[in-house]
Amino acid sequence: MTKEIRTALIGLGNVGRSFLTILESKQGRLAEQYGLAFRIVCVADSSGVAVNPGGYEPGATRRAKENGVPVRRLAGYWPGVTPGDALAADLECDLVLEASPVNLKSGEPGLSAVRMALMRGVSVVLANKGPLVLAFPELKRLARENGAGLAYSATVCGALPVVNVGTRDLIAADIQALRGIFNSTSNFILGEMAAGKPYVDALAEAQRRGLAETDPSLDVEGWDTANKLVIIANTFLGVEATLADVAVQGITGLAAADLQAAQRKGHVIKLIASATRAGDGYALSVAPTELDGDEFLARCAGWEMGIEIHSDLYGSMYFKDLEGNPLPTAAAMLRDAVNLFM
Amino acid sequence: MTKEIRTALIGLGNVGRSFLTILESKQGRLAEQYGLAFRIVCVADSSGVAVNPGGYEPGATRRAKENGVPVRRLAGYWPGVTPGDALAADLECDLVLEASPVNLKSGEPGLSAVRMALMRGVSVVLANKGPLVLAFPELKRLARENGAGLAYSATVCGALPVVNVGTRDLIAADIQALRGIFNSTSNFILGEMAAGKPYVDALAEAQRRGLAETDPSLDVEGWDTANKLVIIANTFLGVEATLADVAVQGITGLAAADLQAAQRKGHVIKLIASATRAGDGYALSVAPTELDGDEFLARCAGWEMGIEIHSDLYGSMYFKDLEGNPLPTAAAMLRDAVNLFM
Repeated sequence: MTKEIRTALIGLGNVGRSFLTILESKQGRLAEQYGLAFRIVCVADSSGVAVNPGGYEPGATRRAKENGVPVRRLAGYWPGVTPGDALAADLECDLVLEASPVNLKSGEPGLSAVRMALMRGVSVVLANKGPLVLAFPELKRLARENGAGLAYSATVCGALPVVNVGTRDLIAADIQALRGIFNSTSNFILGEMAAGKPYVDALAEAQRRGLAETDPSLDVEGWDTANKLVIIANTFLGVEATLADVAVQGITGLAAADLQAAQRKGHVIKLIASATRAGDGYALSVAPTELDGDEFLARCAGWEMGIEIHSDLYGSMYFKDLEGNPLPTAAAMLRDAVNLFM
Repeated sequence: MTKEIRTALIGLGNVGRSFLTILESKQGRLAEQYGLAFRIVCVADSSGVAVNPGGYEPGATRRAKENGVPVRRLAGYWPGVTPGDALAADLECDLVLEASPVNLKSGEPGLSAVRMALMRGVSVVLANKGPLVLAFPELKRLARENGAGLAYSATVCGALPVVNVGTRDLIAADIQALRGIFNSTSNFILGEMAAGKPYVDALAEAQRRGLAETDPSLDVEGWDTANKLVIIANTFLGVEATLADVAVQGITGLAAADLQAAQRKGHVIKLIASATRAGDGYALSVAPTELDGDEFLARCAGWEMGIEIHSDLYGSMYFKDLEGNPLPTAAAMLRDAVNLFM
């Protein structure tokens, strides 16, 4: 028997629309293999919130948005409310998918929506890092106290299951060190610059491909990388770190000549996030780092992201992925949702 | 409050003893973080089975075995019974850890013990691939019908969470292809041979380090690799494959000269397991394969194992690990056990 999950999808950017694309092709598979059907009872974008208890058809909704129809022009538009308001007003749903743009100042509108959902016992799956970076301990507590699921494997390296491996596969480990390349946009830009392209041209190419954050300064100034490191630290390093605990340096101070000079020595400059043991906790940093060309992270090229984790129990593990479009991040939201409900 | 898990540990070889080593140092952590205490109420090796409802002390038991004391000389020795007999005779336990040597002919003594445990609703965690390779569909069915847990992430690439990623992180994916290096012993041997060492010397060095299978022909003739491919196929390719479905070729036909000839072209010969789409299913093979030196698997060197998975939803993912001793495999049993009971 299929269990129906009444789902609110907040954010109809690249990731939100890709989630709808996946539902279009995988509904049969989700029912057969996992016994689940996701009914989209609410959608929201920057224009507003719309509610349809009977469910929005995924393909039609995606195409409308791609054809320039904002949510406020959909049937069921609820004037003047935010997603958080709708949830506070007892929107009937089982799951909130939060895929709105990262806002590191207030976390809004995502943070209020996530808080409100968890307080009502509604499970939340995030692709948006903002609420976690600003309020991780509070959101974990709300989820626990209200028996709500809270999953966010899509927030770190797209579909690479870094968060899940850290939570479920490194049981009882003492992690000695980890480091990674967590931002594919800046990794792509560094690769282009190493090949001689000026920074501005490389950035423009990254934006053209639609993978840069809505605000590209998050990518190139290292904040997106730092966000992911904060989420990792809170999730499986046992540290309640915030952005203030991370020494952050981006790639905007680098010139193509710097990268080419490293290359002549057989080295590679990468934007590296790092956590190393320091006292009872970890020293957390994000910085351009010169690596030997044979190292694992040196060979995470172009749009790849990667991580290496060294622990007492599990040896050394190395993970990387190549995505190149937002579909895997949306798929990571789907896997979180399925794991919460199946 | 700590939940006590009455645990039968079958097999006191490298992996079983490493499990005891982990308990020695992590009991406090397991209680605090996961609320679990593993009490070893039964141990078994090739000499017999011993039972102590009060629990065997992990450190003392490990040291006894390392000092040449077999199970039949422990207090609680139960003459003339196999682990399966003990479970059939209502041995009171919540969990069976199966870490006895791989037996591809009969699967015994592991297979009977696993069957009996599952039929009684006792959860099972395996490091031993034999029972899964010989009876995967039956064991999955027994677990489901009797509400018992069945986990085996330690059977594929030690602590690398291949099985868990395939099961929990590639939700709804259509896997187009995967390939990997699943046997670190043969990978180490090939590396030594590429450096000019004769096969017999390289094998002796691998055995000296204690990582070769009890029967090293499983490593070098490709069967250990094929076992892991069969487990992967059954677990997350949706194929009820057996060893008869895998075209298997080992590394015993290779000479150091072959590896060095490849090296001169910038290539590397690796023992590659591969699953590629063929009709409704997959073509499964294990064979020495010449790779370009820049490929991910070409750069899994020495004792490393690795896998790459290409799917419609999750892009391309690459995982590798470096272990070099049996501790991570034992830790993988621990994580499975914790995930089943917490």
